[in-house]
Amino acid sequence: MLIVDSVQHAKADHPGMALGMAEVGYVLYRHVMRYNPRNPKWFNRDRFVLSASHGCLLQYVCLHIAGFQSVQLGSRTPGHPENVVTDGIEVTTGPLGQGVANAVGLALAKAHLEHLQDHGGDGGGGGSFCGGGSYRSARFNKPDAILVDHRTYCIMGDGCATEGISPEAASLAAHWKLNKLTLIYDDNHNTIDGPTTLALSEDISTRFKALGWNTITVENIHSNMNSFKDALCSAFSENEKPTFIRVKTLIGKLSGKEGTSKAHHGTFDEDDMKKMRQKVNWSDRGPFHVLPMLQIQTDHGERLEEEWYSKLNYYQSKYPEESVEFKILLNGGLVPGWESSLPKWSASEPVDATRGYSEKCLNQLAKVLPGLIGGSADLATSNNAYLHDFKDFSQPNSPCGRNIRYGVREHSMAGISNGLALHGSGLIPFAATFLIFSDYMKNSIRLSALSKAGVIYIMTHDSIGLGEDGPTHQPVEQLAGLRAVPRLLVFRPADGNETAGAYKMAVANRDVPSLIALSRQKVAAHLEGTSASGVERGGYIVSDNSGNDLPEIMLIGTGSELCLCEGSAKMLRKEGRRVRVVSLVCWRLFDQQAKEYKEYVLPPRVSKRVSVEAGSPMGWREYVGGQGWVIGVEDFGASEAYLDTFKKFGFTEENVTRVTKS
Amino acid sequence: MLIVDSVQHAKADHPGMALGMAEVGYVLYRHVMRYNPRNPKWFNRDRFVLSASHGCLLQYVCLHIAGFQSVQLGSRTPGHPENVVTDGIEVTTGPLGQGVANAVGLALAKAHLEHLQDHGGDGGGGGSFCGGGSYRSARFNKPDAILVDHRTYCIMGDGCATEGISPEAASLAAHWKLNKLTLIYDDNHNTIDGPTTLALSEDISTRFKALGWNTITVENIHSNMNSFKDALCSAFSENEKPTFIRVKTLIGKLSGKEGTSKAHHGTFDEDDMKKMRQKVNWSDRGPFHVLPMLQIQTDHGERLEEEWYSKLNYYQSKYPEESVEFKILLNGGLVPGWESSLPKWSASEPVDATRGYSEKCLNQLAKVLPGLIGGSADLATSNNAYLHDFKDFSQPNSPCGRNIRYGVREHSMAGISNGLALHGSGLIPFAATFLIFSDYMKNSIRLSALSKAGVIYIMTHDSIGLGEDGPTHQPVEQLAGLRAVPRLLVFRPADGNETAGAYKMAVANRDVPSLIALSRQKVAAHLEGTSASGVERGGYIVSDNSGNDLPEIMLIGTGSELCLCEGSAKMLRKEGRRVRVVSLVCWRLFDQQAKEYKEYVLPPRVSKRVSVEAGSPMGWREYVGGQGWVIGVEDFGASEAYLDTFKKFGFTEENVTRVTKS
Repeated sequence: MLIVDSVQHAKADHPGMALGMAEVGYVLYRHVMRYNPRNPKWFNRDRFVLSASHGCLLQYVCLHIAGFQSVQLGSRTPGHPENVVTDGIEVTTGPLGQGVANAVGLALAKAHLEHLQDHGGDGGGGGSFCGGGSYRSARFNKPDAILVDHRTYCIMGDGCATEGISPEAASLAAHWKLNKLTLIYDDNHNTIDGPTTLALSEDISTRFKALGWNTITVENIHSNMNSFKDALCSAFSENEKPTFIRVKTLIGKLSGKEGTSKAHHGTFDEDDMKKMRQKVNWSDRGPFHVLPMLQIQTDHGERLEEEWYSKLNYYQSKYPEESVEFKILLNGGLVPGWESSLPKWSASEPVDATRGYSEKCLNQLAKVLPGLIGGSADLATSNNAYLHDFKDFSQPNSPCGRNIRYGVREHSMAGISNGLALHGSGLIPFAATFLIFSDYMKNSIRLSALSKAGVIYIMTHDSIGLGEDGPTHQPVEQLAGLRAVPRLLVFRPADGNETAGAYKMAVANRDVPSLIALSRQKVAAHLEGTSASGVERGGYIVSDNSGNDLPEIMLIGTGSELCLCEGSAKMLRKEGRRVRVVSLVCWRLFDQQAKEYKEYVLPPRVSKRVSVEAGSPMGWREYVGGQGWVIGVEDFGASEAYLDTFKKFGFTEENVTRVTKS
Repeated sequence: MLIVDSVQHAKADHPGMALGMAEVGYVLYRHVMRYNPRNPKWFNRDRFVLSASHGCLLQYVCLHIAGFQSVQLGSRTPGHPENVVTDGIEVTTGPLGQGVANAVGLALAKAHLEHLQDHGGDGGGGGSFCGGGSYRSARFNKPDAILVDHRTYCIMGDGCATEGISPEAASLAAHWKLNKLTLIYDDNHNTIDGPTTLALSEDISTRFKALGWNTITVENIHSNMNSFKDALCSAFSENEKPTFIRVKTLIGKLSGKEGTSKAHHGTFDEDDMKKMRQKVNWSDRGPFHVLPMLQIQTDHGERLEEEWYSKLNYYQSKYPEESVEFKILLNGGLVPGWESSLPKWSASEPVDATRGYSEKCLNQLAKVLPGLIGGSADLATSNNAYLHDFKDFSQPNSPCGRNIRYGVREHSMAGISNGLALHGSGLIPFAATFLIFSDYMKNSIRLSALSKAGVIYIMTHDSIGLGEDGPTHQPVEQLAGLRAVPRLLVFRPADGNETAGAYKMAVANRDVPSLIALSRQKVAAHLEGTSASGVERGGYIVSDNSGNDLPEIMLIGTGSELCLCEGSAKMLRKEGRRVRVVSLVCWRLFDQQAKEYKEYVLPPRVSKRVSVEAGSPMGWREYVGGQGWVIGVEDFGASEAYLDTFKKFGFTEENVTRVTKS
């Protein structure tokens, strides 16, 4: 009735799933899950994800009854669950299927932490802790002190099942043997448009079984809640596989529309309300009435947390070395001075592609950041995103491994990375692929930003400069689209030092995702004027021969095209022109600078400005002004060698110079 | 050896899959598929899709040997197959998994056309042709004249299998009983990063079986090509299910690196070349030598097409009525005068959301365009994208249905729509969902543009104005990102007449995809100055009180915010200001107009310009100029009622007026 009253009060919601799954929520929050409502962030809590997010009312009601302060009357309860708004919500869900990937990420975090690898030392990938011992020999967990010991639950619906991200993530969960992960499928036979059979013929359980999951069906939860408890017990005894529990439910149970798609969303009328109150003998009770016997004692949660802290105290005294690292992670994963591990390059060193510089940065960071973990969607060698000192994550052999092999599954890679970041245990996930495939991950990247997940996206092959693979692989509009995502930091470094600067900002910003766009092709040079510290302000002056005067011409570039700006500037300076070259490596950071700084870098009085970036022109007008020129790519690229493609689209020093003079 | 020579000549390619699948290509192009190399567009050809697109060399070599003029020496062979570059290529593939969805779309087109529905008449959804008869009673096909009679083949690899788009599409293919579709899985046990087992544990065949497919394994194609022929024969006898053939192959067969991921890409050295030539007794033959016996006779293809044309002639004389519609489709699907079916609205009519106007346009168009077919990803009633006079596509009951129930599978919906469009049979596919979920479909939308597939994307709930569903459902950066996609036409109509104009342009542009962004909420009014014809130029003057003078102020809006511009203009005009309101409904079309027209609409001398759009500000500077103001959304939205959210972000007449005066 609390669900019903809430629907009525809010005047708009999705009661169907909340009513049909009420018993599931009740059993989980009342009898099964371990958490502390007074400290929703307690490290060793069980994690719950509502992938079928339109049923958020169910979760709000469960959190309310359980005593979470965040969900009492008058509190903020968004239309879909948001971790950044409501304590007790682990991740932000809404677009279907994302929660399944998040849950896999949360379960992966737990499986890895249990076994977290020694990050320095033997250089052999933590063999001393993981390589030789048994599956149960753990990095953090000790036979006498199990610190990491929780489960992940996720409720999904038909929509989550049909979205491609969920089989991607489910395939990985089985491959990784995430046995502490339980997916609960609300099998209610209805979608928004009508019966599920409109667009679905196969049996979802059979599909999960084919993906390698333990599958259980609960037939009659509405008449016997114990049947669901039994299924959970069976899931708990599973040592190798994640478990999929299909729960047959009646959508909109009680509502009078039960079992039909009409129950999916919408409110009730007075008559409906009256009938429902009668059905459950609730007629003499006012709205929002909660039986005292249902008040789950928050004391129980506090005791659980206290017990865990005494365990942690014991651990600290008995295992001081391990506990140092564990504490670093609990505190967010950043060790004082981590920045100094980033490499520096001098202008005389041989040049590389920025993906090559990225590889060096990433590998140096991995040595000092115990939580740095991530991988690639089957492009590790092309993305140069492999931690050479560490093993692959794999169970049972090397759960401590910090390289994740995602296979060709970009979308779930991003969704899983969000789960890793939001596990709240100091993990710093990175996810790598070609920039063009950011298209596949777009919504998960957006959710990183919305849910404050500090994922680092490493995106190589960042322009038509990738050459022969052709237009299907050459990003054009991707930078523009990603820069428009609120909060996301998009970096396009020009050389080694800028790449290091991008990593510094990406790692430092733990509540904001970053995306680093990197070249496949070698850049033309280490530029003299670039710097990691310049990157911190998003845009800065790389070179200028104007002395005390204002420049006549400003060339603004990013990434591999910054060299073209420098080259063109040299040509123009030979002709006696005053030319400034500006690197605009991260628009958002530059936009956030003080007006004075921005006008110092791009003086308003200098109207002759040319931007040079091998991507969509969209957005550049903001920086070149009404009189400036934008050299960009307005059509799809071409299957040619890099320099031919660049020439065709006007990315040569000569053309930049020509445009500047026009 | 032709594959080997080509790799060597191009200096960069992916020989592994081409060599491993050589027999499959040979059997298909030599013995199985029906096509006419002299007319690659012959309607009744079998369709072939290379979803594992990095193996394009295989397809180029097959097309070369088969005699296609497009793939002879010196011809254009992009790094991944592009239908717009190379005749004989059906769709553009590259990003993995897309081809599987395209193939499902091609097979769906065939299944539907075979039975295409009567489009006018009884209004009951073609019951006369489909409802009562048997599965085999067809719209176009007659017992004595089978006009639509071909198959779709698709080669996929591990990467295609792991991408989420492929289980989405495969689930639909089984649900739709597309028995003439054959997927051929190159089971070579290797990915770019190493053995497939790095990131995959489940058996792909088992998964397809669970999805409802007929599955067959070919164990020894390298020693016995007939085993693959036998599998195809078995697929041909299947009446209900699509068929999945797993072919066990040796990646990079012959190359010396066979069976390893090293064979995936890269060239050969002199020694490799010599050894390979020896192995197949080819040492005395020069590069690019083709045995005469391998030259597939193009005559055979011509005969097939001739036979089909005689059948068509017979059909025309015996079934004149049906053949009229068939010819319309063969000629692209547009009937003279179709535009006049679009509704018109007068300013006095009750207002609606633009999604409501869209519903009327779509349903009117469906009456006159026999090829209009499409659907929604389980949001038909919210997207208002349902053809009420027609049935759902369904086999065996109503294959003639023109509503497609995609379920919650946005990505494959777009990929399948590309297949429908590129079937080349006058089908005009539409695909509908919330604008936020364009994120899930982004890469397929991009491929619509690259491959010239005239898909119509109907995207409702187009801003924070959707209200209560909150930030996870409120698009912000989507319009910017989509406008940056080359060639794509993005429309954001303000009312009924602009919506009709958007549909007119979307339907007329058969080689360009269009995306129509539509409001959930009612717009404030039918504006007096809007028009369908204005939409054709992308931007135009809606109202202006400046007379012969230039305006002092220009307010530029799109969609539901154009009303705010009008409202603010009224306030300002009351104060005696000369104000122009401009609708910028489609940026790309406006950008394509002559300079004179653009400067007529937005005179360069008027610097006081304000844009009003409830989306990312990105790109608007181009139109408001250096001195103008952009009212946009720079953060994620909020879970509130529409007017509250609009107010919070500054979308009120008062705020527009205030900004204008600032």
